[in-house]
Amino acid sequence: MFSNRIMGVPKSFIREILKIAGDPHIISFAGGLPNGSLFPMEHLRAATERVFEKGEPGIMQYSNSEGYYPLREKIAERYRNSSNINVNPDTILITNGSQQGLDILGKVFINEGDDIIVEEPGYLGAIQAFATYSARFNAVPVNEEGIDLEKLEQTLKGTSSKLIYVVPNFQNPSGITYSNENRAAAAALIKEAGMYLVEDNPYGELRFAGTHKKSFFEFIPEQTILLGTISKTIAPSFRLGWIAAPDDVFEKLLVAKQAADLHTNYFSQRIVEEFLSDYSLDKHVEKIRIVYGEQKAAMIKAIEKYFPPEVTYTNPEGGMFIWGTLPKGLSATELFNRAVKKNVAFVPGDAFYVNKTDLNTFRLNYSNSDKESIEKGIEILGQCIRGML
Amino acid sequence: MFSNRIMGVPKSFIREILKIAGDPHIISFAGGLPNGSLFPMEHLRAATERVFEKGEPGIMQYSNSEGYYPLREKIAERYRNSSNINVNPDTILITNGSQQGLDILGKVFINEGDDIIVEEPGYLGAIQAFATYSARFNAVPVNEEGIDLEKLEQTLKGTSSKLIYVVPNFQNPSGITYSNENRAAAAALIKEAGMYLVEDNPYGELRFAGTHKKSFFEFIPEQTILLGTISKTIAPSFRLGWIAAPDDVFEKLLVAKQAADLHTNYFSQRIVEEFLSDYSLDKHVEKIRIVYGEQKAAMIKAIEKYFPPEVTYTNPEGGMFIWGTLPKGLSATELFNRAVKKNVAFVPGDAFYVNKTDLNTFRLNYSNSDKESIEKGIEILGQCIRGML
Repeated sequence: MFSNRIMGVPKSFIREILKIAGDPHIISFAGGLPNGSLFPMEHLRAATERVFEKGEPGIMQYSNSEGYYPLREKIAERYRNSSNINVNPDTILITNGSQQGLDILGKVFINEGDDIIVEEPGYLGAIQAFATYSARFNAVPVNEEGIDLEKLEQTLKGTSSKLIYVVPNFQNPSGITYSNENRAAAAALIKEAGMYLVEDNPYGELRFAGTHKKSFFEFIPEQTILLGTISKTIAPSFRLGWIAAPDDVFEKLLVAKQAADLHTNYFSQRIVEEFLSDYSLDKHVEKIRIVYGEQKAAMIKAIEKYFPPEVTYTNPEGGMFIWGTLPKGLSATELFNRAVKKNVAFVPGDAFYVNKTDLNTFRLNYSNSDKESIEKGIEILGQCIRGML
Repeated sequence: MFSNRIMGVPKSFIREILKIAGDPHIISFAGGLPNGSLFPMEHLRAATERVFEKGEPGIMQYSNSEGYYPLREKIAERYRNSSNINVNPDTILITNGSQQGLDILGKVFINEGDDIIVEEPGYLGAIQAFATYSARFNAVPVNEEGIDLEKLEQTLKGTSSKLIYVVPNFQNPSGITYSNENRAAAAALIKEAGMYLVEDNPYGELRFAGTHKKSFFEFIPEQTILLGTISKTIAPSFRLGWIAAPDDVFEKLLVAKQAADLHTNYFSQRIVEEFLSDYSLDKHVEKIRIVYGEQKAAMIKAIEKYFPPEVTYTNPEGGMFIWGTLPKGLSATELFNRAVKKNVAFVPGDAFYVNKTDLNTFRLNYSNSDKESIEKGIEILGQCIRGML
């Protein structure tokens, strides 16, 4: 009875892992949750109060599919101020989180069997969203410098992909960031291929070390589609994200958005716009940066102390994740099974690859654990790894 | 560059019409908006306040894809109390309005070119949602008794449709309601065909005359998928709807929901659940029924007074729409062009058919106009029609 596409979506074993990790006895480095203690609750409450205070019944009515215009203007303003790029608010579409941005892009671009290019390892949610449109995935590895340029060039020559999906800042799952040189070189290849690049940037603002990197929009504006979200900087519960796209793409995205759910929650759009009118997002993000920077430092310190030296790991300059690699031949899934018995959880690398299993890589999240839990959890993981050696 | 599916979505000329109708100088019977003066603003505000008062950072965090369980329980409870049917809260999926329910059903069921059955005339939003999955539409007419049983039987024999989509209560656009006998007979045909029936019921609670009709769920529970929404009973801005489906279908819907946007706005789910805990929805809906009943009566009275007797129209027992039919040979689009010049808008019938144009039917909305505007607007429409005779 069901569609081929839904039968082809990879089972999310992250969901199963998160169920296990939801047990309060477990120290979980598994999720990708922002730290709830940093949510600007009182300011959001005050913003909500002010929205009600205006007494407009319109705050409860249907609204347009594009999104609330003053919010789209504030997003464009933030691109100008924090990334120094000029994005037209008229071609920003408000979505239910950036996950819906992925879904809508899939709907607008992908015919069954169309080639698309993704990072390896890459964001599972993007793979799932594009899989529901029966895309054919071409994975290009990423490393500490960014995307593997040689493999990218080969893949571009070997396929006629319409889209490439990248998370160039503090990538999920690896935590790596593309260098400016890597971006320039990748952009040149993509420009020549005449395709669209989707730059997903949920973590870009959460930089606690190093220097700001350029957006692909600066290199190839007419071929870049930007995805954004407030989930990591304000709060995820609102499901507020956006797509900024070239004019002709925007028109199609709008048709798809309307068919998908008419429009994004308007009440929440009003609250967030009001919140941004009154509160310095810069100051708030600065708080998050400091805390996450400390949590990352605590995790790196614990890894240095407890992990055997054969284990390698990334040391991100921002974002929420560290990527670990066990010595060849060891299975991160086996490590997971051992760790869970000792009440520690994380995500084995398999979840972030299109067609590979039993890998030796794994993702650790540090944004949602305090320093004591980080020390204790990494100590236990270290013991488990030593037990496997 | 774009997918075939997005190129195949019918252009929403309703959107164009609504832009025109948005002009404050225009008396608009075009939209499908609930009456904003009836939104329970103060109770929603108090519910929001209580949600903040609890001080849980969790109200701002990511949540599960299924939806907030106490809200799903309240929806099940309402099915028991107002429709006398037992729906399992475990298989209710919270969606971004029932429009997203349609999108997710399309994703889960429809392969390119799959047959599905829709009503004629039928809800444009459903046609758009299913069109984005490249469904092949088989239209079965509806009349004052319900769906045309003979045509339904023919269509079931002639195709192998997986889904039939119906709005049996106060249908959009026609305002008609299926009789219990019609439902029983249609259910028997659908049972034999072994397909799923999607019962969309946005207006069912808004009955101001006549008696409650049975849900298809009472006849064929294992083949019925229910779509619901708070948009017409509480407020549309929240984009809160749901799908209630058999177990095996629910599992697939959940995969699709997760890939589509992870989950529905959790903050809003909490507010609406809190609102329903403290406030009698029955009492609130009763207020809406009275007002809409009066507005419909005012429109019928004005039609009787101002329309030439050759124009026929439905007289709904609930919901938001009246469906008019001009004498054969007259075009409702031509009527629209004349009426807009005199500052009155409505939706010509063409928008509600899959493959027909230049029809003599049209939809009038009465929920969002006061009695004076109704009288004046219908008088002008009557003059325009007389001018065409």
